[in-house]
This record gives sequence, structure tokens and C-alpha cells, in this order.
Amino acid sequence: MTSLAREGTDTGSTVSAAADSASGRQIWQERFAAIRDASHALAARLSPEDQMLQSMADASPTKWHLAHTTWFFETFLLAPHLPGYRVFDERFGYLFNSYYEAVGPRHPRPSRGMLSRPSLAEIAAYRAHVDGAMIALIGTVPAGAWLELASLVDLGLNHEQQHQELILMDIKHALSLNPLQPAYLLPVPAERRAAPPLAWIEFPGGLHEIGHVGEAFCFDNEAPRHRLWLEKFRLASRLVTNGEYLAFIADGGYRRAELWLSDGWATVCREGWQAPLYWSDGVDERAIFTLSGARRLDPAEPVSHVSHYEAEAYARWAGNRLPSEAEWEVAAAGAALSGNLADRGLYHPQPAPGAPGLQQMIGDLWEWTSSPYIGYPRYRAPKGAIGEYNGKFMSNQMVLRGGAAVTPADHIRITYRNFFPPAARWAFGGIRLADD
Amino acid sequence: MTSLAREGTDTGSTVSAAADSASGRQIWQERFAAIRDASHALAARLSPEDQMLQSMADASPTKWHLAHTTWFFETFLLAPHLPGYRVFDERFGYLFNSYYEAVGPRHPRPSRGMLSRPSLAEIAAYRAHVDGAMIALIGTVPAGAWLELASLVDLGLNHEQQHQELILMDIKHALSLNPLQPAYLLPVPAERRAAPPLAWIEFPGGLHEIGHVGEAFCFDNEAPRHRLWLEKFRLASRLVTNGEYLAFIADGGYRRAELWLSDGWATVCREGWQAPLYWSDGVDERAIFTLSGARRLDPAEPVSHVSHYEAEAYARWAGNRLPSEAEWEVAAAGAALSGNLADRGLYHPQPAPGAPGLQQMIGDLWEWTSSPYIGYPRYRAPKGAIGEYNGKFMSNQMVLRGGAAVTPADHIRITYRNFFPPAARWAFGGIRLADD
Amino acid sequence: MTSLAREGTDTGSTVSAAADSASGRQIWQERFAAIRDASHALAARLSPEDQMLQSMADASPTKWHLAHTTWFFETFLLAPHLPGYRVFDERFGYLFNSYYEAVGPRHPRPSRGMLSRPSLAEIAAYRAHVDGAMIALIGTVPAGAWLELASLVDLGLNHEQQHQELILMDIKHALSLNPLQPAYLLPVPAERRAAPPLAWIEFPGGLHEIGHVGEAFCFDNEAPRHRLWLEKFRLASRLVTNGEYLAFIADGGYRRAELWLSDGWATVCREGWQAPLYWSDGVDERAIFTLSGARRLDPAEPVSHVSHYEAEAYARWAGNRLPSEAEWEVAAAGAALSGNLADRGLYHPQPAPGAPGLQQMIGDLWEWTSSPYIGYPRYRAPKGAIGEYNGKFMSNQMVLRGGAAVTPADHIRITYRNFFPPAARWAFGGIRLADD
Amino acid sequence: MTSLAREGTDTGSTVSAAADSASGRQIWQERFAAIRDASHALAARLSPEDQMLQSMADASPTKWHLAHTTWFFETFLLAPHLPGYRVFDERFGYLFNSYYEAVGPRHPRPSRGMLSRPSLAEIAAYRAHVDGAMIALIGTVPAGAWLELASLVDLGLNHEQQHQELILMDIKHALSLNPLQPAYLLPVPAERRAAPPLAWIEFPGGLHEIGHVGEAFCFDNEAPRHRLWLEKFRLASRLVTNGEYLAFIADGGYRRAELWLSDGWATVCREGWQAPLYWSDGVDERAIFTLSGARRLDPAEPVSHVSHYEAEAYARWAGNRLPSEAEWEVAAAGAALSGNLADRGLYHPQPAPGAPGLQQMIGDLWEWTSSPYIGYPRYRAPKGAIGEYNGKFMSNQMVLRGGAAVTPADHIRITYRNFFPPAARWAFGGIRLADD
Repeated sequence: MTSLAREGTDTGSTVSAAADSASGRQIWQERFAAIRDASHALAARLSPEDQMLQSMADASPTKWHLAHTTWFFETFLLAPHLPGYRVFDERFGYLFNSYYEAVGPRHPRPSRGMLSRPSLAEIAAYRAHVDGAMIALIGTVPAGAWLELASLVDLGLNHEQQHQELILMDIKHALSLNPLQPAYLLPVPAERRAAPPLAWIEFPGGLHEIGHVGEAFCFDNEAPRHRLWLEKFRLASRLVTNGEYLAFIADGGYRRAELWLSDGWATVCREGWQAPLYWSDGVDERAIFTLSGARRLDPAEPVSHVSHYEAEAYARWAGNRLPSEAEWEVAAAGAALSGNLADRGLYHPQPAPGAPGLQQMIGDLWEWTSSPYIGYPRYRAPKGAIGEYNGKFMSNQMVLRGGAAVTPADHIRITYRNFFPPAARWAFGGIRLADD
Repeated sequence: MTSLAREGTDTGSTVSAAADSASGRQIWQERFAAIRDASHALAARLSPEDQMLQSMADASPTKWHLAHTTWFFETFLLAPHLPGYRVFDERFGYLFNSYYEAVGPRHPRPSRGMLSRPSLAEIAAYRAHVDGAMIALIGTVPAGAWLELASLVDLGLNHEQQHQELILMDIKHALSLNPLQPAYLLPVPAERRAAPPLAWIEFPGGLHEIGHVGEAFCFDNEAPRHRLWLEKFRLASRLVTNGEYLAFIADGGYRRAELWLSDGWATVCREGWQAPLYWSDGVDERAIFTLSGARRLDPAEPVSHVSHYEAEAYARWAGNRLPSEAEWEVAAAGAALSGNLADRGLYHPQPAPGAPGLQQMIGDLWEWTSSPYIGYPRYRAPKGAIGEYNGKFMSNQMVLRGGAAVTPADHIRITYRNFFPPAARWAFGGIRLADD
Repeated sequence: MTSLAREGTDTGSTVSAAADSASGRQIWQERFAAIRDASHALAARLSPEDQMLQSMADASPTKWHLAHTTWFFETFLLAPHLPGYRVFDERFGYLFNSYYEAVGPRHPRPSRGMLSRPSLAEIAAYRAHVDGAMIALIGTVPAGAWLELASLVDLGLNHEQQHQELILMDIKHALSLNPLQPAYLLPVPAERRAAPPLAWIEFPGGLHEIGHVGEAFCFDNEAPRHRLWLEKFRLASRLVTNGEYLAFIADGGYRRAELWLSDGWATVCREGWQAPLYWSDGVDERAIFTLSGARRLDPAEPVSHVSHYEAEAYARWAGNRLPSEAEWEVAAAGAALSGNLADRGLYHPQPAPGAPGLQQMIGDLWEWTSSPYIGYPRYRAPKGAIGEYNGKFMSNQMVLRGGAAVTPADHIRITYRNFFPPAARWAFGGIRLADD
Repeated sequence: MTSLAREGTDTGSTVSAAADSASGRQIWQERFAAIRDASHALAARLSPEDQMLQSMADASPTKWHLAHTTWFFETFLLAPHLPGYRVFDERFGYLFNSYYEAVGPRHPRPSRGMLSRPSLAEIAAYRAHVDGAMIALIGTVPAGAWLELASLVDLGLNHEQQHQELILMDIKHALSLNPLQPAYLLPVPAERRAAPPLAWIEFPGGLHEIGHVGEAFCFDNEAPRHRLWLEKFRLASRLVTNGEYLAFIADGGYRRAELWLSDGWATVCREGWQAPLYWSDGVDERAIFTLSGARRLDPAEPVSHVSHYEAEAYARWAGNRLPSEAEWEVAAAGAALSGNLADRGLYHPQPAPGAPGLQQMIGDLWEWTSSPYIGYPRYRAPKGAIGEYNGKFMSNQMVLRGGAAVTPADHIRITYRNFFPPAARWAFGGIRLADD
């Protein structure tokens, strides 16, 4: 009934919960520990001071992310399901609830950066407390309750992974505002190569199906799988590059109202946009701020940190359009789930490899689609607090697809629907062109 | 190339332009004069002082509407097409351009209420000047240019009619803010009757087509006609009533976050919404402000002046949902184009008549759909200033269908797509439920 | 105990109330009618549409001024003192109370421009109703109550005169925002002459007295008269001219932070100030907007519509300072109460005449002083609603002295304390330099 | 000609610079080290995370204070005066300049909390670098340059002490916003006693002098000493207590517009003020947040963290008024420079001791006066960047006198003029009544 987690044949990231067994439980415990540790590893590159930074209301401090994902397990798994569980600190519910109205009042979002206490050390203790209890819970829950619990564990772990990406997005934004331009990690030696020519791949029209199917985990917003009619279309073989985007700028892209949606143009004027986020003008050449610090702009790399408005304006300027999310999913249906994802440790998009067919569908950058984020036909949000996870955000946002260089590798799916408001630029968003 | 106006068999509101003839031209002249006069008649109920009112940036003064629609004919028809035409006042282009970036800079929208000059008398002279020239243009344009011109005349007249509705929407909002609660017109004796029971009408799923077809006028956003797949669905036989909406309020509708989209709930909290726009609390009972002044709330009337957020929350509370625009159009396909439209002179929705089948599809109130306002597949906005008419607004808005009691009767179509931001309440918007 | 008005020897504008007599009452009736008619005459140059304009929250529509001063007489004189007086419209108290908390709630200030009803014609009827009752009240109040009543009539008439100046200030601001740059009145032929050289007039230090003395009317904030110590000082013989101010601009006046108070500099940056209000750049030369429309800037005229911040920065740039209000009053003590005031009908400052001694102390422009507006020693605001007239505004404002070309001639006094926030520019404020 | 520092007979806090000698230089070195160490000691109670907190644009993070005062010495003393001095980090000038326009551009004030880098450890190194160089500079500057340098050292040290108080004000505000209500220091056992009855002390009118005189250090705004005339007045013997202020609240103090200045009332309504800052409602009784955490409100303590508006409204309610700064200084002329200052380590005001005469004039709380903060007669700000220290803030602020429990003991003077905007509440401001 719920669209959350469960599975038949285990393919990779998720572990069969259906066939309950001691060794199965242990695999779940190991997966739990591995994903939780990954958050810790991401944060470990940052000082306690860095982990305090909240650069805008939309972003959160690293330490808050660490605590919030912990609160999620405590609130939705341990408190209701682990007999005798002792809440670590009763006051943390108020501090680390993100937006679950059903759970109760919460600390105002723009004030998350004001929480010097609890200290990072206390949050580490909180994580340890909850992790221990979770390992116990996974090991001891009765077989009859296991399937439902495993579904919640899966949700909690996917939630943790979403926050791993948010940690990187948010700290990139915060560090970029520091005039010292500090780096999150050392520069990673990356491939330097020219971008391959942009080719067009055609797809036939007709009655298609999109949406998640099967028992493996998905978020509720990826279901139900449903039919829809598409006219034939074509997709660009790779993402739009910085070099191509420079031509858009040089052609007056940010000064020509006729290229923009009305709301987009108002945003350009109000915010004074003249280039993507994180671009700056050097003396001789453009610079770009990355998680490895500032460096020279590489024209072969995909253009990143553009808003939907910019993606849409670029596509109009190029004489094309953005794909709908259905077109994207139909085109990606056969693609392998590999690409430049967070496991590579680059945390930055790379030039397209130049292989035949669709490139960069998975990883590198989330791809803005032309589709507003609404529920699929017959979608209904689950009841209760968990129902607030996705459904209530289905207005004024646009769908992005495919994952980025900061997305955990075992987190992405072809059916995955990411979403941001059309003016948002701090997500790792890029542009793939489509046409009729 | 353009999706604008022209037609084969004349059915009512539009006149055949294809078969050019002296009598045909005269019919166009008469139609032009009739629609322009209708604007004048709407404004004539208001004093010059009333016609100055601008109650918010989204609304405009009546006299500005009168001038802007005139500017539209002058700019897009007379100046390019009538040899020797003398622009009435060169400065009016700046004052009365609404949002056409391609035409040049313009007076800031929120300052339209600051234009005591030109006076209403000068604007009347402006209208007379342009109307005379337009009659001449229609009568004299060479046959070879007639078809294109007629298409533009059609657009200008439909534009005039849109502003007739805006005049009523905007003046209602402005007068409502006056503590004296002045009436735009005398109370009209209206039918008092109970609302019929809500019934459900079923529609089959399958491959459907929506969008405008044929030669009669439509706006560019109603095309191209295209195929889409629908699962079977059902629609409520009539609009939701004030009485039903009172039950939603009594059940905590405005206090229960779980019923709302996240942006909607933020709006409820920020704006302090506790009821639809224009409702107020009397001593013993609810009152409602109408264009005929304030009066007692009638539970049998359709609930009006709700936002998309309220419509959506109501539907969730009722256990149903809103229709998509495609569902609405498929269901309405066979409906007659009649209903409580502006020609009845009521300017207020009426209780449903109680006939079998779908009621109130046309007129009474625009019906919020679940569909974000985006372009149909293969839609491209026309080139040039006219291309700004619809296309650039395709973000952050929701589609409404069916016309309202303030919509000119010969202006509405089954394929007509109205659109407003989801928080807007000053449009005459109501709720029709749908379900799977 | 109240500091309000009345007098022994009648010198000009005020009429002896102490010696009650039929002819004395008649003189008061005539004065009442004359001052009330003057407001009407000011408004008569404007259309009903013009009289609707409210260009910012600080300004009010002309028709609102006409109604508010009428409400003042009705509320503070007729209702409590005229037996059997019938309030014209009970709802007007809410609409036309300006800021008297003690009288009750009121229409929000920024929404005064939304009052198309009552119409200007209704407000004229309101004025006639109240004027008739006031004439009757003045003629019939018993002798024993006359002295107190005359004091209130005096206050009401001075209040009316303050609003006459506000009508001109506010409509100038509103018309200036209209791209058509309409004129309030025809250009008045004015003297064209060079400004005389700036001379310095010295004044001795010592123990001085300032503040109102005697029985003639004054506002409560002009009393009590009190002693204070001044060091010797000198005042410039005339106001700073446009030509001198142009040199300040040319020397980077609006770009050099070191010339400004911190709050002033923040205002310059935030508002983008580059010149006084109402200045604009023409093709060849500067233009200035006046109540007679736009015209070429005259370097000999006093610079007008500067804020306190600009006056203070100019003085620092010039190596001088602004006078304190005590210095100004001590210097002006012997000055004649004549100058370019509203009775001349110019409504615009004129070049200094070039006579010896202090020029332009009265009229032309209000002169910004270095004195924050606070109560004089032992000042206490009167009890009740009338006590709100001046006392509660004694924070965050600066004192201006001397009247302007829009100030009624029989309204100004040497002891008169005008006040505006330091960033305000729509008052007719100018600069007189002082030094040690 | 500068009003800065120097002295003849050393009385306490400052050390004679005039009589240059090796031992004299050593005393200056020791004083320098002691005051710099005191900042370090204040910060040492806080974690690096705490020291990141910036709770509002008016406040700064602790670590920023530590760096900024260091920048002050580097910029105004070391760079121009120590031959061969190596600037610690060229980029710190941009980061740690507070408001000196003459020195160059700077990091936006509201973004000081975004500076996780440089780390607190780096700032400690910065302090050590500058401290070492300062000790060398004091020891080696040639005798001929000593007097001017000592004056700058004095300014730098007084500046450091001002920031010591700001550290405590700012961290109190930041910690108060944390729902965990963390304490800066352990509760200090404080005297519990009833407040003595309020008595009135009379002072004669006449010609008085105020302002700094002599060679000891003062800020430029305390000079020149000058004559002024005062009418006789009286001062309350002690500060207003929490208990007295509770009576004001109970009598509708925050609900009665007639008690307030207009700007004050607007602030009360806009901010929803119902009590002083840091007060909260407990179940049975009021609580107050202090630097030692939250505790029960003591009615005998002076009411603290009120704005000028609240002080002024309280005085009006009590039938009295606030003292002018001249009255305060004349009354305090003979007072000893002792009281509850920061050296006691309480950081919180205490009940008045009950001695005869004026109590609590020095320490406990800054006392709001009725005097706007403007320059004394003949005051001129010094030239150059140092001239920005005080002069440019002379608008829209009110003077406070006497120091508070967070003010360093050797920093306060009778002539000391503190200043804050009238709505500010995070300073340790209290109320002393005055009357005619």
C-alpha cells in the first residue's frame, strides 16, 4: 500500500528484507553502519566551526544534518519500535525536526546556524547512541514486524543519503561566501579533455510507461508506474558545456528579456544574475568555485549550478527545449546506473567521455526537465508524518533527473525524481537539450 | 504559423474573415464597436475617482485597463497597418504598455494608480481616436492583407474581453478594502434555491485529444491539439458550495497543516487566512462582499475566491482531488457553451440548477485544476512582441477552466486555459472535485 | 496650563479672544471662513482624480487632507461643545483620524489613497456641514466658555494651515512621479537674479532665552520659554544655492563617505541618491521639477528638497556646520515676519535679495538645524488626545525653522518648530550654514 | 588638538605617557598585555562553535571581536609606526575592518557569522603576532614619537575594552536564542536583598560645565568641556527595579499608546513587545535569562535590557521623566568611580545597596538619558580614519551614562558617553528617573 521499500531480487544497493534471516539481518546492520559512517566521513573534513555555517534559510549547517538524520531514526524507528528505548535528549525533537508538522513544533529553519549547542561532540554522542540502538533494533525485531521495519530502515537510509548530498551542496555554498575561498577537499586530478560534439539521439513516440515498478526501494513520489503518450522526441547526447554557455552569455543571454520566462527575467533583474552561481571574473579569464576551491573555468565541463530559468532560457536561445521528465525516463530506461557519482570522490562534473549514444545521463549533474513537480496519476501521499516526506512539496518546483557528482552511487535510480524551485542554483543542476 | 484566430463556419461569437466582403467587413466593424462599447459600459458605473484605484500590484485601475487595451490596438494594428495613422500621444506607449519587453520600457506596474493624468476624459478621447481609426482600418485594408489583420483584430478583441473581466476582478478587490463597502452595482434579484446533491459522473480512460482545433479564434496556449493518455476518472456534478466549505472550516481546515501543500500552509500562516477572500464575520452569521456590496453568505452558492491552495486542501479534506485540465476538457467536450456568464449581469456565481449530468462547467466560477500551466507538447510561442502574450508566463501558475460570472459570454471556450499563481484569490475561482 | 494660544495685543494673524464681544466673535468667524476657504482654493486647482493620489505612506491624498482637518473640528470642537450637533457620518471618524490613539482605531495610513468613496463631492458637503456648525458654535458659545473654545479654534485653524502646506508638499511629490510631469499651477514669472555673495553675520555668546512667550497662539512644543547658554556663533547671510550645491556634487559629494553621517551614507547607498529630490539630468543641463512643472535648474535659487543628511554633509564639505535651533532663534529674534511665503503664490524659493544682514530667514525654505526634536526643559505634553499633537513625535526627527514658500504667511513664527526625520526630502527643506 | 589620551597626574587606570622613561614604557607594556589578555579570558569560556555565533546584524561573533581589535592595532599602530612590520595576512583587512570607510572596503556586517575560516586557532596566532609586535613597538619607538603613539595605544586599549563589553552583550543575545538556554558562566552567588525605597536627590540649577577636562584619556565625543544652563532638577537615588517595572506592566504599560513616543509604540506593536528583553513567562512566575543561564526574576534587581522607548514610557507612567545627560553628569560629578562593574565578575546588575545619596550611578546598568547623541558645541571629528570612531554616528541614537556590570572597571568615566538607537535592547540598559 505504501510505496516505500521492499524487494524481491536484490540488485545491488538494497538488501532483501523479504527473506528474513540472521545473515540477512546482519547485512542490513552492515549497510546501516556503512551509510551512517559515510555521513561522518563527509563531515570529518570540516572543523566544528565550519559545521556551524548556515549561509541561507534553504541551507543547513553540517552538524544539523548529522543530528537531523539521527532524529529521523530515533523518531520514526526507535521510539515506536524498540521496547525500552530511552530518547537521547527530549529537547532534540524541537531542534532537529525539519518540517514534519505532525510531529510537533520545531526550531525555525533560518536559525539553525545559531545552535552552537549541542556541540558537535554532543551530536557525535547522539549519533552513537542512536546507531547502537538501531543495530539492536535491526537484530531483535520480531520476524512478523521485520518487513515493515525494513521498509522504514530503507527510508531512513535513503534519507541519510539525501542529506549527504545536501551536506556537500550546503557547505559549498557557505564556503563560497567566505572571501578566503576555502576548499572542502584537495583538488582531485581530473581528466582534461575536450567535450565531444553534441549529437542528437531520437526516440519514438507512442504509449509509454514511467514510474517505479518492483519491490526495490523507491520514494513514494516515483510511483505509481503509469502509462502516458509521448510524441517522438530527441535528446542531446551530452550535457551543455561551459563553453557553449559562454556563447549564450556572449550573445546577451542575460540581457535579452525575450529569452526568458517572465518570472525568470524578474529574477535575473532582481538578483543581478550575469552568469551561473559560483562563476566569477578573473583578470584574464573566468574562474569557478568548486569544493576543491577556486580554479579556472574549463569550457569542456558541463555548465553547473544553473537555475531552471537559466536552463530554460539557454534551451530557447539554442533553438531547442528541455526534456519532459517522461521523455528523460523513457530515454534513460536502458541506461546503466553508473556515472560520475559521489563514490568517485570528485564532487564536480567532468567533460563527457565521448562514447556513442546518451552520455552523462547518470551522475555529473542533475538535469532540469520541463516538468513541474506534481504527483503521478493516482498518487496519494501516505498517511501520517511520513506522508509529509514528498507529497506536500508538489507545487512551485521543477523536476530534475539523473543524479550528480555529489549523489551517493547506490542512491540514484532511473525513476528518481529530484525537485527544486525554478530559481534555485545551489543544487548541482545542469542542462540537457531536447527537441521534437 | 500563428495559432491565432480565423475560422471556417462561423458559430456565434466570431465572424468569418476568410470570405472577405463588404458586408463581412461591416460585421467586423460592428463586432469591434460592440466589444469596445462593453468596456465603456462596465466603467461607466464608476466615478473617475473609483477608476483611479489600484489596490495591489497585481491589479490595475479601471482607467488603466481602458487605456491599455486601446494602446494594444494602436501599437499592434494601427501603427504598423494603417497608412498615415497619427499616434494619439507618443507618451502613452510608456504609460500603457503592460509587459511587452519587445515594445520598450514602461511605467512600473505598482505605480499605475499614480496616473491621475491623463484624466479619464483624455482616455475617453484616446479611445475615440483609436476606435475611429480601427473602423477605418477594418474598412480599408486591402483584401490581400485582410486575413492577417482580421486575426490581429480578433486577438485585440479577445484581449479587450479579458480586460473586461479584469476590470470587474480588480474593482471588486479595491472596493472591498474601503471600510464603507461600496457596491459596484445594485443587488440583482437572484435565484434562491438549495444546492442539488453532489453526484459523480464517470469518464472512461484511454487515449484522448485535447487542445484547440479548427479555424475559429483561440489563444496560442490552447494549441496544438495533441494526444494524451488518461486513466478513467470521475467529476463532481457541480461546484463545491459555501455550505460544504463551511464544514471544512468547522473541521479545522485552516488549522490542520496535514491538509495543505507546504507552500499553501506557509501562505495560510503568513497571511492569516481563515476563510475565502471576501468573507467576513458578522454578529450572527457570515457575510460576503460582492460586486453588489456586502450581504449574508448563501450556503447554496458555490464557494468563490479561493486560491489553488485552498481548493487543493479542500479536495484532500473531502477525500478527493482536483481534476487535471485534460480531464476537465475531455469531460466538457460535449457541453454547451452556456452558463452564468457576464451577459447575465449577475457578476456572482449562482447555486447549481440541479439538472442531470455535469452542471456549472461553463460560467459561475473558474475551476482550479491540478495542472501547472505549461506549454502543450510542441507549443512554441510566436516570434515578436505578440509572442509574449502567453508563453512567458508558463511557470509557477496553475490552470483554471470554464469561465466565471464575470467572463464575457462570447469569450469562453472549452479549450480556454486561464492561469493564476496558486496563492491568488481575487480571480473568481472555485472548486470542482474529481476522483479516480 | 495648556501652552496653547491666545493673546493680549493682537498683532496681525490672530485675533484677541480675551476681550469677548460680538464684533470680536464675528472677526473669528471671518478668520475661520477665510482659512477654511484657503484649503478649498488650494484643492480647486486639482481634479478629483488628482486629489486621490497617495504617492507614499508619508503623504496623503488632497481629499483626505480636506476631510481630516474637517474631522478635527468635528471631533475636538463640535461634538463636545455644540449642543445638539449631529455628526455628519459616523463612519468618517475611522476614515479621517490621522494618528490620535485616544480617539480610537483608524484606517491604515498607507491605504488613504484607496478611498475613492466618500467622493470629493461628499467631502465638500462634509466641509460645508462642519463649517456651518463651526460658525454657529463661534457665534453662540457662552461667554464663560469662550476663552477655552477660542484656544481650540486657534489650534484647529493652525492645524488647517499645516495641512495646507502638506497638500502642496504631497501633491508635488505625487505629480513628480507621473511621467507626464504635470504642473499644479502655471509658471509664475519670478525674479531672475544672481545670488548675492555669502556673508557671515556674528552673534555674541552668553545666556539667552528661546521659546514662545506671551498670549498669542503657539504650539505646545514652542514652550516653555527657557534660558540656555550659547557660545558666540555666526550665521550665513543667505541660504545655500543650487550653484553652490552643484559644486558639492561635482566634488564627489555623493560619493565620499567621509562627508556623511553613518546613517546618511547608508541612505545615500541604499536609495542611490545623486542629487536633491526633484532634480533630473537633461541633455545639456540639470532640470528641476516644481509645482509649476519641470524647468531648467537656476543656480541662483536656494537648493531645496534636501534631507538633513544632505544638509549636514554639505556643511561639512563647506568646512562649516548647521546652526542649532537655539542659534537660529536667537539670530532671528529681531527679524521681520516677512518673506517668500505662500501668500506670494510662487510656491518655490527665490534667489536671495541681496540686502544687508540676514536674508531669507522667514520663507523660501525651512532650514535644517543640527538640533534633534525633543521637548524643551519642563515641557510636558497636554493630557488627552490633543496631547498627541506634538509630544509623541519627539524622537528620531530633526528641527527645521523659518517657514517655506508653501507656508501660510500668518502661520509662521520665530519660535515655530517644524520637524522631519533626517532622511525626509519631500518637505521644502534647505540649508543655512553656521560656524563658531 | 585631538581629544585623545594623555595625562599629567596619573589617577588609576591610565599611565603617564608624558614623562617618558624605560620603566614607564614597561608599565605601558604590562597594561597592554593585561587588557589584551582580558579579552582572551572572556572568550575562553566559549567553544569555537560558540564563538561563531552572530545572532543579528548588530552583533558580532566573539572571534570576530578578537580579530577586529587586533586589526585595529595592526592597522593604526603597527603598519604606520613599526619599521619592517609584516602584516599577518593581507586578506584580514577586508575581513576585520568594522566600519572605517577611509581604510577601504570590508566584509558585509551581517555576514560576519559566515567566517568559519580563519579558524579560532588562526585568530589566536594573529593576536600573538600583533601582541608581540606591539610590545616591541612600545619598547622601541623613539622618544620624540612616544607621546603621539601612547595616545594611539590608549585609544586601542579603550577600543579593546569596548569590545570586551560587546563580547558579553553579543554572546548573551546569541545564547538566549538557543532553546537549550546555555549559560556563559556558572551562577555567581549574589546578594539577595530588598531594594531600598526610592528617594529623590535635588540639584541646583545654574550655569554648569560638562565634558572631559585634563590630560587623561577620553574619547573625542566627551570633549570639549563646555558651559550650559540647567534649571534645578532632582534624580532618583537608585535605578528602577524589576518589581517597579512589573507594576508598569500590570498597569497596561505595553498596551497603552498614550504612554509611548509614536516610534516607540510602533515598535511595541511591530515587535510584539510585552516585557523587557530576556524576560519570559514561567508557569508560576517570570523568568529572566542571564549570562549564568535562566533563573527566577528578582524584583529587587534593577530592570535591565529595556530600550530607550521603554525607559521613556516607564518614566511617563511614573509621572517623572528621564534625566538629560548634562543633569546626569552634573549630579555624578562628585561620585566615586566604583560600582558593580565587570571586575566583580557578576555580569549582572544587583539590588541597590541602600546607602544615602545617589546609588548605582557607576556600574550595574547603563542609564538611558533623554539626550539625543550629538556633538558637543564646537566638537569636530578628527581627520582621517580615526575620525570615524565616534562622530559619524551622531544621529538617531540616544546617550546612556554610567557603565554596567559588563563594563571594564578602568574603562568608565563620569564624562563617558555611550549611545544606542532608541529601540536597542541588547545593551545592558536601565532606568533612572529624574524630575524638575
